[in-house]
Amino acid sequence: MSDENVVFVGSKPVMNYVLAVVTQLNKKDTENVVVKARGRAISRAVDVAEIVRNKFVQDVKVHKITTSTETITRDDNSSANVSAIEITLAK
Amino acid sequence: MSDENVVFVGSKPVMNYVLAVVTQLNKKDTENVVVKARGRAISRAVDVAEIVRNKFVQDVKVHKITTSTETITRDDNSSANVSAIEITLAK
Repeated sequence: MSDENVVFVGSKPVMNYVLAVVTQLNKKDTENVVVKARGRAISRAVDVAEIVRNKFVQDVKVHKITTSTETITRDDNSSANVSAIEITLAK
Repeated sequence: MSDENVVFVGSKPVMNYVLAVVTQLNKKDTENVVVKARGRAISRAVDVAEIVRNKFVQDVKVHKITTSTETITRDDNSSANVSAIEITLAK
């Protein structure tokens, strides 16, 4: 079940993702939410986690943060490495 | 001693910071290096850690990642919150 509690952060305004995370966390059987992002959205993912933690859900903690490198293949078959982050927020 | 092994990531090219971290890690008495960044540079800091780990120093691991919120006061005394990250790389 907990695998489904993932919020992918992209290029939309930060508050969109904050709302998504807060909504997930407020569900009765949710213990944690994973905030994921790649490339430039990584900064925004950290913003999301910090805003949720400081402004909206006081009893949530950053449980774990992991980084990784993903290889992306473009339409023309060229590939590039891009960094990724996973921030696990837990009640 | 270990408090001095800090590399602040800003808006320069990624490889500048990669070189700084690798240089620090290659010093004889260095056990770990902390990569710090704020705001949009957070994505770049993750890139630096991933590139060092995957391409340059094989025996280094991500020991710890922490995020925080810092309040910045501008010249006109207005203030803003900005997210920050600290990635500790350890041999």
